[in-house]
Amino acid sequence: MRLVTIRDGGFGAVLEADGRDRFVALPGTVEQTLADEAALESARDLIARTDTLTLPVLDPAALLAPVRPGKIVCIGYNYRHHVPDGADPTADDPEFPDVFLKSPNVLIGPADSVRLPAVPADVDYEGEIALVIGRRAKNVLLASAMDHVAGYTLFNDVTARDWQRRTSQWALGKSFDTFGPLGPWIVTSDAVADPHDLLVEVVRDGVVTVSQSTSTMVFSMAFLVHHLSQVMTLDPGDIISTGSPQKLATVQDAHTPLAPGDAVTIRVAGIGELTTSFSD
Amino acid sequence: MRLVTIRDGGFGAVLEADGRDRFVALPGTVEQTLADEAALESARDLIARTDTLTLPVLDPAALLAPVRPGKIVCIGYNYRHHVPDGADPTADDPEFPDVFLKSPNVLIGPADSVRLPAVPADVDYEGEIALVIGRRAKNVLLASAMDHVAGYTLFNDVTARDWQRRTSQWALGKSFDTFGPLGPWIVTSDAVADPHDLLVEVVRDGVVTVSQSTSTMVFSMAFLVHHLSQVMTLDPGDIISTGSPQKLATVQDAHTPLAPGDAVTIRVAGIGELTTSFSD
Repeated sequence: MRLVTIRDGGFGAVLEADGRDRFVALPGTVEQTLADEAALESARDLIARTDTLTLPVLDPAALLAPVRPGKIVCIGYNYRHHVPDGADPTADDPEFPDVFLKSPNVLIGPADSVRLPAVPADVDYEGEIALVIGRRAKNVLLASAMDHVAGYTLFNDVTARDWQRRTSQWALGKSFDTFGPLGPWIVTSDAVADPHDLLVEVVRDGVVTVSQSTSTMVFSMAFLVHHLSQVMTLDPGDIISTGSPQKLATVQDAHTPLAPGDAVTIRVAGIGELTTSFSD
Repeated sequence: MRLVTIRDGGFGAVLEADGRDRFVALPGTVEQTLADEAALESARDLIARTDTLTLPVLDPAALLAPVRPGKIVCIGYNYRHHVPDGADPTADDPEFPDVFLKSPNVLIGPADSVRLPAVPADVDYEGEIALVIGRRAKNVLLASAMDHVAGYTLFNDVTARDWQRRTSQWALGKSFDTFGPLGPWIVTSDAVADPHDLLVEVVRDGVVTVSQSTSTMVFSMAFLVHHLSQVMTLDPGDIISTGSPQKLATVQDAHTPLAPGDAVTIRVAGIGELTTSFSD
């Protein structure tokens, strides 16, 4: 099931019929639904009873961020570097995940543009899979951690590299207004067979710059939920962005800051595509 | 004017009459009032017309955090070390403020206790003055930055030092549930003659551990608002905690983690006192 929030239309699900994405409104709020397995089941029932061809076609321009997270928690280094044959890919694994927060003013939806800052800033993208918390999580065991993940979406951890690097803490470089495109929808957990077997691809201006599987993550999604929940209560709708895969070597060597008119697409088969344009 | 939020009583002001603090309810919300000079003026008028002796005595146990900030923005090193006579106190000044965020689950009020984590954690306190944003701020000039500060309150940036230090980013060590006591009230800006001439004192279990003037800040309050507003829109009720004064040398040498039963008081003449107890 794909859950969306649309402008003037509230919360609902997207269904494909006759080759087109269509919208059906659902009762309650997205947070209530994510937190409650019975509400998710009711939504599935409603969808099963719906004559999908009668539904309005989804207007992609009406999509908002699928949820307004109370916290946007992000993970630093969490995908292993590509190493030569025979080398140990886990050699550089850190002992603990490096965690940072983005402030709520970063949030935008899939139809919105990132506004490049008025001040000088070397702006870069990071295409990531974000976990969406369902049932509240505090001090959860590793074995049951994924029971608290209601679904998956895509997140672009847009970053001003110069602002990030000039102090020890990354918060400012990560928290410019609009630096957090989220969407296009939440794919519920039941629809993702193995979240550690997904290929994350990022395309910048037509060129593939990232192509790495979630199988190369350092800390598993379950571990992240378990670990974070020892510190903070994770609430329905909270987002854990699971870290950025490595950019391809050729791209790393030729970094150029994002400029007005650029576009970045994150795509993950089974989750979706999030395309964000950058503007003044 | 001192603005408070109380359990079951909403938002209002505290007035002293006959030697006791009393409560008068105010219309609207604290965020609306902070953002609107006319609403602040109406509140002052209402207070001036009130027969204060008829007001109920304030129950300190009913005090909640005076505001629920959308963002809790904190500053790292922002008070200069004590230096020997003749040494330049600005020698270690960083070029830019080091900024980090605490997540919203840290927020507690002046009547609440910090709950020490279930997991091992070396918990410490940091007594700070917090700015409360009034009018929305984005890209504000240094000269007008303080026009966006509606008032001042106290904030204890409670920190698990071991969690803070074991990764490059401090977010987890700073964001345990209840690690953000705020209060007891917001003192409106008009009532603070010079925010850079305030003595911040912290008392732990009866011993003064911090005693340093805001005159020794590295980055002024106006600069912090100006600087942050280049990155993020600051909204009414957002908190900028202005950094922790240096602990006295004898205390730094004898650091012991906070334990159940400990209490820490932050006191600043003209703002108030925030006492927080620590419990299992």
